[in-house]
Amino acid sequence: MDDPQPVRRPGGRSARVSAAVHQAVTELVGERGYGSFTVSDVADRAGVADSSIYRRWGSLDKLLTDVTQTRLKARSPMPDTGSLAGDLHALAANVAREITGPDGLAVLRLTVALTGNGEQGLQARDDFLAERARLLQSVLDRARARGEHPPDTLTVLDHVMAPMYIRVLFGATPLTPDYVKGLVDRLL
Amino acid sequence: MDDPQPVRRPGGRSARVSAAVHQAVTELVGERGYGSFTVSDVADRAGVADSSIYRRWGSLDKLLTDVTQTRLKARSPMPDTGSLAGDLHALAANVAREITGPDGLAVLRLTVALTGNGEQGLQARDDFLAERARLLQSVLDRARARGEHPPDTLTVLDHVMAPMYIRVLFGATPLTPDYVKGLVDRLL
Repeated sequence: MDDPQPVRRPGGRSARVSAAVHQAVTELVGERGYGSFTVSDVADRAGVADSSIYRRWGSLDKLLTDVTQTRLKARSPMPDTGSLAGDLHALAANVAREITGPDGLAVLRLTVALTGNGEQGLQARDDFLAERARLLQSVLDRARARGEHPPDTLTVLDHVMAPMYIRVLFGATPLTPDYVKGLVDRLL
Repeated sequence: MDDPQPVRRPGGRSARVSAAVHQAVTELVGERGYGSFTVSDVADRAGVADSSIYRRWGSLDKLLTDVTQTRLKARSPMPDTGSLAGDLHALAANVAREITGPDGLAVLRLTVALTGNGEQGLQARDDFLAERARLLQSVLDRARARGEHPPDTLTVLDHVMAPMYIRVLFGATPLTPDYVKGLVDRLL
């Protein structure tokens, strides 16, 4: 007997549909904000049928969570410059570039919005935090192994990441290289 | 000739409808998150007709913006304890109480969501930032007048407010009194 489940090959039609739908969601969140578009809007923009989206994701919220999780997992690897200061400066610059990039605000905003949306949303939020904490921890562990005295993870999140996130979320001011560097210098 | 515009007396029917609708919105944002309810949901919970909401606010987005702005304007006055440290500790404790209170997360989340929603949303965001900055500035100005050397407004926002906002928005950890006090001590 054949396996009734469809086989999904990377690079196949399934992957192309997925990429088009993810891109459409990211653009719509960027343009209109969360809560201001429907499954039909996504389908139109991605060039697929509404039913394809419902069949694969089940609901708009599940699709949004999938987009957020996929984006968060695609992060670049942590820098390894040989010193705590070098690593943290590189890390802060990466995060700044990421969240001020074309889809950065959309992903941040989606993560915040999803934390109010039940189990799936909490999962997306926990993935976001766990991913950030894990990457950061590897930098701090390496520093400790070299005999440096790094701050703890939450302190870096509070005083380097949080100010950048809040400035981007509230659109307050641009994240200049001097500003980002200053956050790390101040911490160290 | 009579004035054709309706007269709205504080405490009259108009104010009661407004209060009921605002309360319904705050509850729904808290329970379901932004983007997961309609004008009808709000009307049902507030015990008013859908048409009353459309007549007064025009759209769900305009209603959400009005709720956010009203909440932000209802802030308690700034503390005046006689010292910079005392004022900042009181201020940080007030903000922590406010954003961890029953509707605090809903208002924060709504502010973030609205920044993606055009002119009205940007106005709500600017009101949020301007209100915070204005209150904080009065504390810092008083300190300077006493001969103290306060940090600037953005530094307080980055290192006292931003960590609290991000922790609440991402639901990471509770804001204990020791944690909040530590943020201010570290800054000073």
